[in-house]
Amino acid sequence: MSIKFTVVKKDKSSGARLGKLKTPHGTLETPAFMPVGTQGSVKAVSPKDLREIGYKMILSNTYHLYLRPGVDVIRDLGGLHRFMGWKGSILTDSGGFQVLSLGAMRSISEEGVRFQSHLDGASHLLTPEKVIEIQAALGSDLSMVLDECIPYPANRDYATESTDRTVRWARRSLESRGSENQTVLGIVQGGVYPDLREQCVKDLLELPFDGFAVGGLGVGEGESQFCEMTKFVANLLPKDRPRYLMGVGRPQDLIFAVRCGYDLFDCVIPTRNARNGTLFTSKGKINIKRTEFTRDDRPVDETCECYCCKNFTRAYIRHLYMAGEILGSHLQTVHNLTYYYDLMEKMRTGIREGRVDLWPSEAESVMQDAGSE
Amino acid sequence: MSIKFTVVKKDKSSGARLGKLKTPHGTLETPAFMPVGTQGSVKAVSPKDLREIGYKMILSNTYHLYLRPGVDVIRDLGGLHRFMGWKGSILTDSGGFQVLSLGAMRSISEEGVRFQSHLDGASHLLTPEKVIEIQAALGSDLSMVLDECIPYPANRDYATESTDRTVRWARRSLESRGSENQTVLGIVQGGVYPDLREQCVKDLLELPFDGFAVGGLGVGEGESQFCEMTKFVANLLPKDRPRYLMGVGRPQDLIFAVRCGYDLFDCVIPTRNARNGTLFTSKGKINIKRTEFTRDDRPVDETCECYCCKNFTRAYIRHLYMAGEILGSHLQTVHNLTYYYDLMEKMRTGIREGRVDLWPSEAESVMQDAGSE
Repeated sequence: MSIKFTVVKKDKSSGARLGKLKTPHGTLETPAFMPVGTQGSVKAVSPKDLREIGYKMILSNTYHLYLRPGVDVIRDLGGLHRFMGWKGSILTDSGGFQVLSLGAMRSISEEGVRFQSHLDGASHLLTPEKVIEIQAALGSDLSMVLDECIPYPANRDYATESTDRTVRWARRSLESRGSENQTVLGIVQGGVYPDLREQCVKDLLELPFDGFAVGGLGVGEGESQFCEMTKFVANLLPKDRPRYLMGVGRPQDLIFAVRCGYDLFDCVIPTRNARNGTLFTSKGKINIKRTEFTRDDRPVDETCECYCCKNFTRAYIRHLYMAGEILGSHLQTVHNLTYYYDLMEKMRTGIREGRVDLWPSEAESVMQDAGSE
Repeated sequence: MSIKFTVVKKDKSSGARLGKLKTPHGTLETPAFMPVGTQGSVKAVSPKDLREIGYKMILSNTYHLYLRPGVDVIRDLGGLHRFMGWKGSILTDSGGFQVLSLGAMRSISEEGVRFQSHLDGASHLLTPEKVIEIQAALGSDLSMVLDECIPYPANRDYATESTDRTVRWARRSLESRGSENQTVLGIVQGGVYPDLREQCVKDLLELPFDGFAVGGLGVGEGESQFCEMTKFVANLLPKDRPRYLMGVGRPQDLIFAVRCGYDLFDCVIPTRNARNGTLFTSKGKINIKRTEFTRDDRPVDETCECYCCKNFTRAYIRHLYMAGEILGSHLQTVHNLTYYYDLMEKMRTGIREGRVDLWPSEAESVMQDAGSE
C-alpha cells in the first residue's frame, strides 16, 4: 500500500488514538476531519483558504466528477490534485452513497448499480471494478469500494442480503485493483444489526484492505442506535489500520466517535450550514439570519482566530447573508471549517498531552446545539 | 476639504496625467479604477483579495446601503469602512443613478426623487440634502451629489430642464454639507449637447467642489458621441482637481478616457462579466463556457500573475462555471479585477516613465473585444 498509518499515542480515558497518516501527498495527524469537495471544489473556499485553516486532506465525490467534467478529462489534465489545484491528500468516495440516494432512478444488481444521471438522465452502470478504476484515474490517495449504504429502516432480510453483496463487491474491488499502490478502504455495512456488522467485519478482514470505513450510520437510526453501533463496530476493527466513520457528523458526534477510536471523518455539515447561515461557536450554534444580530458588533465567535472572526462583525455577516452576497457564503464557510478544524485539533492535543481537560465537552455541545436551533 | 489631489506628471502625447490622491484612508496613484461594492461587498472577493491585487479605493452604493441594512445600522457600527472591513478609501455614489433606473417606480420633482424600494415597495424620498447627510453618516472618503443621469435619447428641452435642476441640486448639496471635511464631487450632466455640458461645467465651477464627475455617458449614445463628449468635457474641467468618469467602462474606454485626462473610474464590467464567465486576457476576451476550454490546460491568461492564473487551468475554471461552484465566481472575479488593475498600472507606468510603448493599445483592444464576443 502507498499509505502508512501509525498509531502514535492512545488515550487513557477512552478508545481515542493519535495517529499519523502518510499519503503520497503529505502527512497528517489523526483524528482528522475532511472537508467535502463534492464537485472538485470545497464549496465557497479555495485551496489556499483550506491550507490556511490547516487542512491537509479533503474528500471528493467520484459520482459527481464521473458525470462532470468526466474522468477522462481529469485524467488527461494530470489527475484530480492538479485539476483542482490541491496539493494535499484526497480521499474519494465510491459514489455508492450518491447513486443510492437517487431512489427510483437506480437499480441494484449483483453486477453493480445502474442509474440515471441527475444532470441529463443518461443511463450509467457503476460496478465495483469500474469504481476502483475511476479512482485510480483520478489519482486519489485513498479510494473507497463500491458499497450499498443500507437505508434506515431496513428489515433483517434486506440488510443481510445487501451486506453480503457489499462484501462480494469488496472482494471484486480488491481483485480488480491494478496495483497495490492504490490504497483501498473496505466499508462495513450491516444496518443496525450487530451480528451482521460483526460478520461483515469478519469477512472484510480476510481481504488485504489498507483501512476500514464504517457506513450506513447517521442515516436516521436515532441517537442511541447511532452511538451503540458506532462504538460496537469500532471495537471490532483492527488497531493498526485507519478507521473512517463516513458522513459523520455534528460536533458532538465527532467527539463521541473519536473517543470510540475513529480516525477519519467527513461531512457536509460545516460547509452546507455555513451557506445557510448556521454557524458553530464556542457557545453553541447561532443562526445569523436572526434580527438580534442586525447591530451585533461582535465577531461570530470571540474565541476564534479565523479571517472571518478577526475582521468582520455578526452584523456584517448577517447583512451579507440577507443581501445574498457571495462573500457571506465564503466567510461563513471559512469560519465553520475553522471551527471543525479547531475541534479536531483540541482532541488531538488532548490525546497528545494526555490532558482530558483540553477535550471539548460533548454533553455541553449537545445541549447547546439543541438549545439554539 | 479632507482630500488632497496633486498632479504629479503630465503625459506629453495626450491629456493623461499621473496624480496622487490622498484621502483620510490612504494615498493612491491615479488614474485609478475603483471596483464596485454595491451592497458593501465587492461581489465574490474579500477586502484581503482586493488589497492583494493592489486596490486602494472602492466604490459603494448609497441607494443599496440606505435600503439595506440601513444607514443608521452602519453609522452605529462605526461607519462603512469598519462595517465592511475595508481599510482603504471609499467613494459612494449618490444613489441617483440607481433611483432613476427604477423607471416607473420613481418620480422627480424639484425637491428630490421619490421612489419605491426594489426590496419591499416602501416609498422613500431622496433629496440632495439627505444624500449628503447619508454619505456623511457612512463616512465616505468621497461623496457625490444627487443628480439626474439623463437617459439617451433625451430631447433638448428635457436635457436643459434636467441639467438646470441637477445644478440647483448641486448648490443645495454643498449648502447642506455640515463640514468642509466632507469631500463632495459635483456631477456634470447635459446629455449629448455640448453647450449644455459647457454651461453645466460653468455653473458647477462657481461652487467649491473638491472634484468633478462626468455622468450620463456610456448610456447608449454610441461610440462616436461617447468619445466626443468624454473628450469635450474633460477639456472644460479644472486641472487641479480630480476628474471622475462615472460608470465607465470597457478596457478600451478606460484607455481612451485616461488619454482625455480622467483620473477615476468605476464599472461593474470586470466583476459582473466574471460571474458570467467572460474573462479579459492580454489576447482579448474569452468566454469560459465554450466547449473548446473543456481540456484547456493553460491558465486564463499566460501573462497574468493573479491567484487564478498561477494555480488553475481554463479547464478547471470552466468546470467550476458549468457546475455552478461559488469558487468559479471568486477566481474569475480575482482574475478580471487583476486585469483591470494591471491595465491601469500599465498606463500609470507609461505616464510616469514617459514611455508610450508601455501603454496598452486601444485600437487593438477594441478589435479583439469585438472579435471574441
